Amino acid sequence: MSTTRNRLFLSDNTAGAPPEVVAAVAAAAGEQSAPYGSDRFTDSLRGRLAAVFEREVAVFPVSTGTIANSLGLAALVPPWGSVLCHPESHINLDECGAPEAFTGGAKLVGVPGADCRVDPGALREAVRRGAGDAHSVQPSALSLSQATEVGTAYSAAQVRELAGIAKEAGLAVHVDGARFANAVAHLGASPAELTWKAGVDVLSFGATKNGTMTADAIVCFDGAAAEQLAFRVKRAGQLASKMRFHSAQLDAYLADDLWLRLARRSNGTAARLAGGFKAAGIELLAEPQANILFATLPDRVRDGLLAAGFAFHHDRWAPGVARFVTSFAHTDDDIDELIATVERA
Amino acid sequence: MSTTRNRLFLSDNTAGAPPEVVAAVAAAAGEQSAPYGSDRFTDSLRGRLAAVFEREVAVFPVSTGTIANSLGLAALVPPWGSVLCHPESHINLDECGAPEAFTGGAKLVGVPGADCRVDPGALREAVRRGAGDAHSVQPSALSLSQATEVGTAYSAAQVRELAGIAKEAGLAVHVDGARFANAVAHLGASPAELTWKAGVDVLSFGATKNGTMTADAIVCFDGAAAEQLAFRVKRAGQLASKMRFHSAQLDAYLADDLWLRLARRSNGTAARLAGGFKAAGIELLAEPQANILFATLPDRVRDGLLAAGFAFHHDRWAPGVARFVTSFAHTDDDIDELIATVERA
Amino acid sequence: MSTTRNRLFLSDNTAGAPPEVVAAVAAAAGEQSAPYGSDRFTDSLRGRLAAVFEREVAVFPVSTGTIANSLGLAALVPPWGSVLCHPESHINLDECGAPEAFTGGAKLVGVPGADCRVDPGALREAVRRGAGDAHSVQPSALSLSQATEVGTAYSAAQVRELAGIAKEAGLAVHVDGARFANAVAHLGASPAELTWKAGVDVLSFGATKNGTMTADAIVCFDGAAAEQLAFRVKRAGQLASKMRFHSAQLDAYLADDLWLRLARRSNGTAARLAGGFKAAGIELLAEPQANILFATLPDRVRDGLLAAGFAFHHDRWAPGVARFVTSFAHTDDDIDELIATVERA
Amino acid sequence: MSTTRNRLFLSDNTAGAPPEVVAAVAAAAGEQSAPYGSDRFTDSLRGRLAAVFEREVAVFPVSTGTIANSLGLAALVPPWGSVLCHPESHINLDECGAPEAFTGGAKLVGVPGADCRVDPGALREAVRRGAGDAHSVQPSALSLSQATEVGTAYSAAQVRELAGIAKEAGLAVHVDGARFANAVAHLGASPAELTWKAGVDVLSFGATKNGTMTADAIVCFDGAAAEQLAFRVKRAGQLASKMRFHSAQLDAYLADDLWLRLARRSNGTAARLAGGFKAAGIELLAEPQANILFATLPDRVRDGLLAAGFAFHHDRWAPGVARFVTSFAHTDDDIDELIATVERA
Repeated sequence: MSTTRNRLFLSDNTAGAPPEVVAAVAAAAGEQSAPYGSDRFTDSLRGRLAAVFEREVAVFPVSTGTIANSLGLAALVPPWGSVLCHPESHINLDECGAPEAFTGGAKLVGVPGADCRVDPGALREAVRRGAGDAHSVQPSALSLSQATEVGTAYSAAQVRELAGIAKEAGLAVHVDGARFANAVAHLGASPAELTWKAGVDVLSFGATKNGTMTADAIVCFDGAAAEQLAFRVKRAGQLASKMRFHSAQLDAYLADDLWLRLARRSNGTAARLAGGFKAAGIELLAEPQANILFATLPDRVRDGLLAAGFAFHHDRWAPGVARFVTSFAHTDDDIDELIATVERA
Repeated sequence: MSTTRNRLFLSDNTAGAPPEVVAAVAAAAGEQSAPYGSDRFTDSLRGRLAAVFEREVAVFPVSTGTIANSLGLAALVPPWGSVLCHPESHINLDECGAPEAFTGGAKLVGVPGADCRVDPGALREAVRRGAGDAHSVQPSALSLSQATEVGTAYSAAQVRELAGIAKEAGLAVHVDGARFANAVAHLGASPAELTWKAGVDVLSFGATKNGTMTADAIVCFDGAAAEQLAFRVKRAGQLASKMRFHSAQLDAYLADDLWLRLARRSNGTAARLAGGFKAAGIELLAEPQANILFATLPDRVRDGLLAAGFAFHHDRWAPGVARFVTSFAHTDDDIDELIATVERA
Repeated sequence: MSTTRNRLFLSDNTAGAPPEVVAAVAAAAGEQSAPYGSDRFTDSLRGRLAAVFEREVAVFPVSTGTIANSLGLAALVPPWGSVLCHPESHINLDECGAPEAFTGGAKLVGVPGADCRVDPGALREAVRRGAGDAHSVQPSALSLSQATEVGTAYSAAQVRELAGIAKEAGLAVHVDGARFANAVAHLGASPAELTWKAGVDVLSFGATKNGTMTADAIVCFDGAAAEQLAFRVKRAGQLASKMRFHSAQLDAYLADDLWLRLARRSNGTAARLAGGFKAAGIELLAEPQANILFATLPDRVRDGLLAAGFAFHHDRWAPGVARFVTSFAHTDDDIDELIATVERA
Repeated sequence: MSTTRNRLFLSDNTAGAPPEVVAAVAAAAGEQSAPYGSDRFTDSLRGRLAAVFEREVAVFPVSTGTIANSLGLAALVPPWGSVLCHPESHINLDECGAPEAFTGGAKLVGVPGADCRVDPGALREAVRRGAGDAHSVQPSALSLSQATEVGTAYSAAQVRELAGIAKEAGLAVHVDGARFANAVAHLGASPAELTWKAGVDVLSFGATKNGTMTADAIVCFDGAAAEQLAFRVKRAGQLASKMRFHSAQLDAYLADDLWLRLARRSNGTAARLAGGFKAAGIELLAEPQANILFATLPDRVRDGLLAAGFAFHHDRWAPGVARFVTSFAHTDDDIDELIATVERA
């Protein structure tokens, strides 16, 4: 199931990779290099991330977002700890228990909130629950998805407030940034303001969904966690001998703000899609903030799109509700073609 | 530390990737595709492996050899099991306990033998030790490195004998094939004869050292292990959303016997190096069977090579002993230059 | 904080042990014996349990209910599995993640229902959620608390219905029987009908709360789980060298129906307490089915009881709500004294 | 297999319990008490241990020595750590991988030495092996058995030397004191000198083999480890609700130096046995320092003893070698009867 026309809206992971990333990989292929990160691509990556985040950071290139989340959390919580997260979060529902596996069995505890954002009031209660009681798991980290699983973003102020509640109670703060680029592009806030300046200790710096092939990074703002990660990464089978290939992808992804340009593109096509839907009388569940759009499709519209070869998830959340995720690979033409199909139906 | 001249003999992982692999990755980058392995590259890979192994196999592309070993073993042994392996094996010494981590704490028990090969007599004793006794870990799997960490290979008959001892005692059989291609190229035996026909249940099909960038594969000949691996792979953070990029590398690696041509090249340069050393009066510890060579270097030779920019591990195993690992990237000219430097010293 | 007057209603674990159990332990102390369960007390225990359950069972004496639950579940679910249980269940809230620890990181998934009982409709949905999807933990076992954490019991028909839903979907069935005796005494059903005849695979046969000192048992009706448990028990540090001391407690607990007589006593004092409260105009949240009673106490009554030295948990579930747990050690006089204190307040 | 005549020399765990321990348990059975260690027996135990060790200690009563070792080590080493121990140590060979399970997969690395004692020179090498290298497990703790598995003891000076080597390299120090009492009784050194004054962080304070029924204790001299243990103990299913029953056993065991009197008795009967063997011309492998004796028995002597109902392990270490372990329950008469049987054979 492959296509050169971009009719897949299942997820942004259906995209390939932009030419800049391909070129970087090809360059890395053409030379000998010391293994395990002692190479010029990884060096360059470190420098670029320091610039992006306005400070030195510890970076660990890894092969998936799931492992980035799981190792990042493992460095922050003990086996008897709990991770407070939204009940609908990816770490809770879609990683087959990987966070539990790598933390040694820590517990993910749901903290509800509207629009897939953790609610501050609910968090205030959750951080105290069972604290100090040996019969209970110990609240140890807050994990936020930025952007969230429904495409909403936390503002810098919101991250600060939630991280503040966590920090005051002694919890660490983790961000699952599978779509961090889309959130930054939408919010216009600086990566620093959205992370360490707001109290974030470890960030899963997602890249695969927005342009790399098989490379994400753990970006660590906390020294003790970074020390652990040096060993945790190897022990997880993530210390790639030819790490330069991961690093080269990430390096190209960051060069010349490519990552933000790609995210603006997918945010833009999502907005274009939203506009088209509304013009065609299709109801949106919310205005998209990133590159994810939920809409209520009449049956004949849904069926018309499917018949035309468009692919998207539907009738999973509620009857009639469909989800469209745009990627950097989608063009305005792809969107317009979809809208035209809607209008015909 | 990067170089376009191939003076690194530290490990075969210093090589980049051949043009065929780069081209495959570039092709995968140019199109949309369904995620998680439902793509044409993974389909093609499955077909090629079935041809290589002369039967259907379950294949799980992963990002490192360490994770291939660890997950493969985890699918074969319970947490209270033991893995019998050579004391010098990579899984025992060089993976920071990753096999222990993914098996839930199984124990690696050393079974000695000459030339880094497990000795049949020692294995016969080890498979019985503590069996059925709740106070002892239970011998559950044999793991062989093919080729071994010192570059020797197990013949098909040797694999059959050892696997037979294991199987008769109820143990499963795993092969760490980080350099499987080099062993196949050296032995001239078929991949089938060296694996499932000899009793092997799970193979870490190494590719990174011999030509891919960041892709190895778990090749599974056992149905029950394959069922587990579907979940273990995800839970380990190894179900890559853009799996096609791993698969495309492996697919190109297998096409037109590229993998064997590359392995013959590195085996050949190792042999050329051995010949050059001997002609120069340098003593070898053994004739190389694969792409690894141990030699006893006089100090002035060692120092001359280092001064000329050659890199290799030395004085780690015994005073004066140096290890040279060749890769597909080394050319005859690279070898001749090294030998010339030796002769000058 | 110890008292010879029975004014503690915090939990049934405040009781000591009846003379029969003390005598059995004293007998075991007076002789040499082979270790690890090869002794006459463990032999006798096996026979008694076979009689109680009307079939051969595998029995593993352990030192706490938490370990009984955790090991029992570990023998039924893979690390990527989920345990379906009531959100208020002890395994989910009060064991500091021990089930997660021993299962290798399985996930506890709440299935709601009134009166702390799992609802059949909710279970029907939960057993299918994510089944076969590698991104999701796999529903692997149902765990029921019998009696529940609020003192309600599942009838044999209810256990059959819930176990049937689980079994049909391929899940195993576990019962946390910390207060199994109280449930049996209340229901008048046979232990067999409440367990294996209804589809239960593994039972945590609780005894500590109802008469032993530090001994519970895993009772296993499933052969494969029993094989695993032989090793899991040792590996958990629960293969007591002087196991006879655990077995002797359990043996005496079962002899001459002592366990049921003790449970009837605590159920009876709970009923007497309920009657006294009602006569005094105190509102009960529900009629007690076992030995747990929830009541809404006016502040002056609560304070009067506390001032008189009575101890019980209060204002934890809702303002004004207090919980009283009776044990075999409470006498009618103890209850009457409490009621008299209520009436005075 | 039980006997009131003390012909079992398989292990000291064949003994029952002395009257003082039985009486303490009976006392604890007769009263209500708050659970989880808030009781007068646990309070008293804490005081007695503080007196024995000449300082405040954190104490965690547990049900077996295996769990004491495993949790103690888990509080000292990370999952990627290694525990340096004698290859013949109980934690390495006889606990079915429990230390690996509770540490999250740490590796036990053998450090050889004569008489089952870790050799200082070998330890000096081992503490450096792989330190700081992410490919290798990290040497994190030294574990010594006191007395060792062959009944030898480490002098205070020996513990100091070995602990000093470990500490200087940044490792923690653990002692498996399954037979700590026998070592103290033999050495005449103070418990403080043999532990924290010599650099020991955590001690498995064994009691079951020397007089309690099912109670050992983790004695912790390190604050950070103690904080972890509060949660690790619960999560391991070792926070007994009726902890007073464990504490009462240990309390009685310590009162009036009972523990040392019992150990002197078993050391004494071992010495008597050694003397008898030698008088009868039986060769000892070494003079016993504690309550374990290895002797080379002619076949007819071995067979004569077995025929007379004596039980002991033999032909396990080397042909003809038998092991005799005495306990507090053995009397001089028991020994003399055995010797008489030897002389007859």
